[in-house]
Amino acid sequence: MAEQDLSSKVDDLKVTENAAEAVNDDDDDQVVDPWNVVTKSDKGVDYDKLIKRFGSTKIDQALLDRFEKVTGKPPHHLLKRGIFFSQRDMHQILNRYEAKKPFFLYTGRGPSSGSMHMGHLIPFMFTKWLQEIFDVPLVIQLTDDEKFLWKDLKAEQALKLSYENAKDIIALGFDKDKTFIFSDMEYIGSCPAFYRNMIKVQKCVTFNQVKGIFGFGDSDCIGKISFPSIQASPSFSNSFPHIFGDRKDIPCLIPCAIDQDPYFRMTRDVAPRLGYPKPALLHSTFFPALQGAQTKMSASDANSSIFLTDTPKQVKTKINKYAFSGGGTSVEEHREKGGNCDIDIAYQYLTFFLEDDERLQQIREEYSSGKMLTGELKKELIGILQKLVADHQEKRKTVTDELLKEFMTPRKLKWGGKDS
Amino acid sequence: MAEQDLSSKVDDLKVTENAAEAVNDDDDDQVVDPWNVVTKSDKGVDYDKLIKRFGSTKIDQALLDRFEKVTGKPPHHLLKRGIFFSQRDMHQILNRYEAKKPFFLYTGRGPSSGSMHMGHLIPFMFTKWLQEIFDVPLVIQLTDDEKFLWKDLKAEQALKLSYENAKDIIALGFDKDKTFIFSDMEYIGSCPAFYRNMIKVQKCVTFNQVKGIFGFGDSDCIGKISFPSIQASPSFSNSFPHIFGDRKDIPCLIPCAIDQDPYFRMTRDVAPRLGYPKPALLHSTFFPALQGAQTKMSASDANSSIFLTDTPKQVKTKINKYAFSGGGTSVEEHREKGGNCDIDIAYQYLTFFLEDDERLQQIREEYSSGKMLTGELKKELIGILQKLVADHQEKRKTVTDELLKEFMTPRKLKWGGKDS
Repeated sequence: MAEQDLSSKVDDLKVTENAAEAVNDDDDDQVVDPWNVVTKSDKGVDYDKLIKRFGSTKIDQALLDRFEKVTGKPPHHLLKRGIFFSQRDMHQILNRYEAKKPFFLYTGRGPSSGSMHMGHLIPFMFTKWLQEIFDVPLVIQLTDDEKFLWKDLKAEQALKLSYENAKDIIALGFDKDKTFIFSDMEYIGSCPAFYRNMIKVQKCVTFNQVKGIFGFGDSDCIGKISFPSIQASPSFSNSFPHIFGDRKDIPCLIPCAIDQDPYFRMTRDVAPRLGYPKPALLHSTFFPALQGAQTKMSASDANSSIFLTDTPKQVKTKINKYAFSGGGTSVEEHREKGGNCDIDIAYQYLTFFLEDDERLQQIREEYSSGKMLTGELKKELIGILQKLVADHQEKRKTVTDELLKEFMTPRKLKWGGKDS
Repeated sequence: MAEQDLSSKVDDLKVTENAAEAVNDDDDDQVVDPWNVVTKSDKGVDYDKLIKRFGSTKIDQALLDRFEKVTGKPPHHLLKRGIFFSQRDMHQILNRYEAKKPFFLYTGRGPSSGSMHMGHLIPFMFTKWLQEIFDVPLVIQLTDDEKFLWKDLKAEQALKLSYENAKDIIALGFDKDKTFIFSDMEYIGSCPAFYRNMIKVQKCVTFNQVKGIFGFGDSDCIGKISFPSIQASPSFSNSFPHIFGDRKDIPCLIPCAIDQDPYFRMTRDVAPRLGYPKPALLHSTFFPALQGAQTKMSASDANSSIFLTDTPKQVKTKINKYAFSGGGTSVEEHREKGGNCDIDIAYQYLTFFLEDDERLQQIREEYSSGKMLTGELKKELIGILQKLVADHQEKRKTVTDELLKEFMTPRKLKWGGKDS
């Protein structure tokens, strides 16, 4: 999965469900693709516009209600609060769940740094919850080959980052019996069926198409040009013969940030031509940078990010120093006019990590009215994140190399009360 | 390795040792690339022109003399007769042989049809001889992924053709202890080290470069665009850890027809940037089609080819019916003016398969003078090819699925009196 790189050339892309029909929109104030998330608006990306542009469907109350009815569980706060806000074919996944037909979860990460940041946690926290709710197998792709191709990294370094990131992911508490984590650089060389799907996808997609979808140019290396086939392939169940045998009819559900959608629009375009089901998707908004919602948090900019390796003091300092405030310029002004939660980064972060709906609502009201000051709001967030980071660090210590190896070994999984 | 496809668009390419600097030459009467071998001249391709264009070196008497001195063996008739006519770094390989430093042989085949033809035999017959002379390991790549990408073939069919072709190759008598035959569709998914080299090459080569070298265009699929990295990777010893461990400093010698040179010019361009030695090459001329030397024999045109599966009667009929004759239009004219060996296909084929130098010279003289008639010349060839094909069919019957599996299993090899 691609990491934002602000230094790279920003192309303004407009892509449709039909992967071949890419249209540029020069009037647009925002750029969202797997390598760039930038907007001129301090409220952040206009997600309604993105839904229209990408051709996905907004997650509405009817879907949330059906979700609760079908699973018997209230929707996750990330779903309720519109952080997971867009979807493709989610109703079909719920249909399968109702009919007790199998499906699997697929998500991933591009290991661009040894330490993950808070924004990276979001899809994994949510995926873990989905796995618990649905009791289905999960595959997690670590695209170290992508990071090697895009960054100034040696192949061996990228593989190392895969292991480091996998430990963070395992620390989140995924069920070993239901979860397979793989590094591309290891797994592609261990599974002929995966490679076969790669070249099947590669045969269906032209340079013109990846140029339109991803903005690749003539001076891009041929590795980048063929990479989308690698992120597409885990969508197909027969890419994991150790889990699904030779079954090619089991669809997947992909929870991911919406900047990854271009890969899966391409995949959905190709799937029927290969006789495979299209992947379903749940798209999240971006986790904003400390400096403001104009860009997402990026591991390559240490000051924009809170890392899972940060000390309590670093967490406190970064939030107090860098978190963009929607409060007044003085205490007096703040008391009088109130703060603006829509652009306040500390408040935004609370919507991701403070599970208590009532408390969040209370903060919103108090901050908006001016009763709560920026320092108090930040203090609330600092407490939550310090605990989250410290807990994570404790759990990560328990992830041994042996456990890592177990998660990353191709093997049968157990779910729904039976073995694969 | 690519198969000529006359139906595909013919691009006139001129490529230099520096893979990035491709130049078109519109005045040229011949096209030679991995997919096209066509010339307007009935004497066939102008190989001196090709050497100049590709930037390789002609095999001269000095190299033949040194070959004999270093190995203690007279050069193979394909070398002596200029069928292997061009080289890159062959002196360096002889240096290594003298210094008892290791190197390996690499050749391959694109399995486009279940049955191989006479032209396909040439590089393998020659490679087998090189292996015996030098006592070195040999890797043979079957590019079933390439055939899948280029042809109207299913992946599973292409893999099947790999097995069929591998049996023909094994029937030629390669030493099992020194030879590893692999299908891309199997091996890439069985060897992370090979995939790592693939992406290392992919990172060094841009779309612009493959456009220049191979003539790829915007509407080519991304699989074709990245394929050259797959044919490049077996040039590097650490793509075969079961044979060479993690040694990356063992160079290879690639015997192949000269249309494959673009792949290896690219490889030689990339190798130093990866810290790998450049592959050395021995280039052969093309095995001409029955209809004449304007194109090479092609498995996709049954009437242009003598297959290893042909019956004695088919061999006889095809040569008598289709082999382009350099003889006179009547017996009288032939007796008077003599035949032209330079354009006579039956004579050309004898230069490939009749090992006896004296007999060949005698035929040349008698045919040129008009003493030998076309029918007599063809009869001589028919006898040789009928025996060759029948012997091959006998040997191929002894190649069991078990033996096939042994050759195609990644494993240690034994050579030079020691294990790998």
